[in-house]
Amino acid sequence: MPTLLTPPVDANTPPNGVPKVAGRSAFAPIAADIAEADRLFAESLAGYRSPVAPLIQHLRHYRGKRLRPALLLLTAKACGGVNPHHHILAAAVEMIHTATLVHDDVLDEATTRRHIPTFNAEWGNKVSILLGDMLFTQAFHITSRVDRRACELIGGATNRVCGGELKQVCNRGNWHLSEADYFDILDGKTAALTAVCGRLGAVYAGASEDVADKMETYGRCVGLAFQIADDLLDLTGDEAKAGKTLGTDLEEGKLTLPLIHALNTLPSTAADELRHLIRSDRPDKRRKVAEVLTRTGSLAYAKRAAEEFGRQARAALADLLPSECKHILEQLTDWSVKRER
Amino acid sequence: MPTLLTPPVDANTPPNGVPKVAGRSAFAPIAADIAEADRLFAESLAGYRSPVAPLIQHLRHYRGKRLRPALLLLTAKACGGVNPHHHILAAAVEMIHTATLVHDDVLDEATTRRHIPTFNAEWGNKVSILLGDMLFTQAFHITSRVDRRACELIGGATNRVCGGELKQVCNRGNWHLSEADYFDILDGKTAALTAVCGRLGAVYAGASEDVADKMETYGRCVGLAFQIADDLLDLTGDEAKAGKTLGTDLEEGKLTLPLIHALNTLPSTAADELRHLIRSDRPDKRRKVAEVLTRTGSLAYAKRAAEEFGRQARAALADLLPSECKHILEQLTDWSVKRER
Repeated sequence: MPTLLTPPVDANTPPNGVPKVAGRSAFAPIAADIAEADRLFAESLAGYRSPVAPLIQHLRHYRGKRLRPALLLLTAKACGGVNPHHHILAAAVEMIHTATLVHDDVLDEATTRRHIPTFNAEWGNKVSILLGDMLFTQAFHITSRVDRRACELIGGATNRVCGGELKQVCNRGNWHLSEADYFDILDGKTAALTAVCGRLGAVYAGASEDVADKMETYGRCVGLAFQIADDLLDLTGDEAKAGKTLGTDLEEGKLTLPLIHALNTLPSTAADELRHLIRSDRPDKRRKVAEVLTRTGSLAYAKRAAEEFGRQARAALADLLPSECKHILEQLTDWSVKRER
Repeated sequence: MPTLLTPPVDANTPPNGVPKVAGRSAFAPIAADIAEADRLFAESLAGYRSPVAPLIQHLRHYRGKRLRPALLLLTAKACGGVNPHHHILAAAVEMIHTATLVHDDVLDEATTRRHIPTFNAEWGNKVSILLGDMLFTQAFHITSRVDRRACELIGGATNRVCGGELKQVCNRGNWHLSEADYFDILDGKTAALTAVCGRLGAVYAGASEDVADKMETYGRCVGLAFQIADDLLDLTGDEAKAGKTLGTDLEEGKLTLPLIHALNTLPSTAADELRHLIRSDRPDKRRKVAEVLTRTGSLAYAKRAAEEFGRQARAALADLLPSECKHILEQLTDWSVKRER
């Protein structure tokens, strides 16, 4: 059972999408630690029998590049070393991320994920909602093996993730969303979990509060850069290269940074025309929107914002002693800004 | 803001459905403590602004008799006294219960709860799923104010609740569910939360491990008795008296104790006929099923099972010193078995 969710971990053939540094997986130095976190993840769910067991098995299709456990473990190693607390916490953050994916697929009515049927497509929304709930609660339960502070940090971060997602859904179709509200949503739904990965990696490696603060800043800024790059990709990326459907933010009524910038920059008549275009069902809508965003400098504005968060993330690493993992964390700031998916 | 979710607490006019002992609300001795837990519940959600704030306000319609906080606080008082840890934990268990109600209404496609539109009816399934997630995570976050053990107990219990619900949904339409599997589901979805209320009340009142074990048994047995009585009500109760739609377990493909007993007792041909009847859409199905269950002694069997759990719950209280709250906990065992809703 412990290997149920553990696909082969091999530093030379990293899972799809894992960034490379100097020609090999950026996660190679922590491959054994990720494998241990995977083992704890699987072990904590191994008690379920039929008819629940097939769901647990299907979970392996939801596991991607393990970016959040990797951030936590690389930070730990750069701050002093990985220990068993880190493995538990890495399993917990991956479980929380997985729970949000299971619920996201219900929210988005998605039928496939990585070319495999989603839980909702295969077992229906009811099973998916309860499976996500079970994963959230299991994550908290395993976190309680560590200490009160870990529960506080993970509880607080996860609450901000869910609060951010709730704010986002409540603002769907709000074509007047402010930049401040956009960043408030982003800070919750994406950056709270990457930020806590940085802090947890540092705290449980015995780092000072000052270093822990900086590693939290690192995680937050990487998360923000990553999400802004993702939002840009959704507007201007190439579907074949990205390997997923793009333009979904527009379809779902989500305003992202380039659009918010354009709506704030354009004279009010032109801004209303842009709102009209966004809500239309013109077949060339995505191209037309991109044209406007290029003309207003809004794509460049969002790109600069992502790069600025990348710079802030890199700056937060300045005090760490030189090491392989510090170097990888630095490289990840570039990857988060430039990634094609 | 702190009073947002706090309807008037008045020992003489308890919320609908609160049991009475000696003519007044069974929760009267802890009314101020329930009010304090309500205040903490509201305070922890007070930071949300528009457009999320109306959801937080609507939550007050989801709050019923506060059975779980009351169990926790009455146990605390019977074991030595209520302190601020208990208020936080009472708020947390009520928040978890509320999260399950919000998600249950999505699962059941319910449009009203206590004559008020459900979240899913008013804001849609997406908002409801994320609101439930946010409440689960907020409950864990406030629990972390107490200590590691509280996080472990609440994390473990909530995980069993969600696991039990998941098993139940995965077994919908399984007309061969065993009695052992039925009790396994019940032990999770209903009894795990009432059991942990008993344990938390005792532990944080400074009770010994032995007393804490007994209070957990008390909570578990009350929860089991309550749920079996509820399942019986669904099959044989009077809708007008119960104030809700009955017969829903049959419609949703859920086998409960009386049916499992009948299917195990009847010769196989008659058992298949009963399965056929359950799956039919005869207008007189509920009455016909009740007739079979009376003939096989299955209603009496389930009633005895509920009474036996009531007796076990009462026995678990034996070592407590006499007090008003001990007396109320004893009376609640009768109420949980006999209740009309």
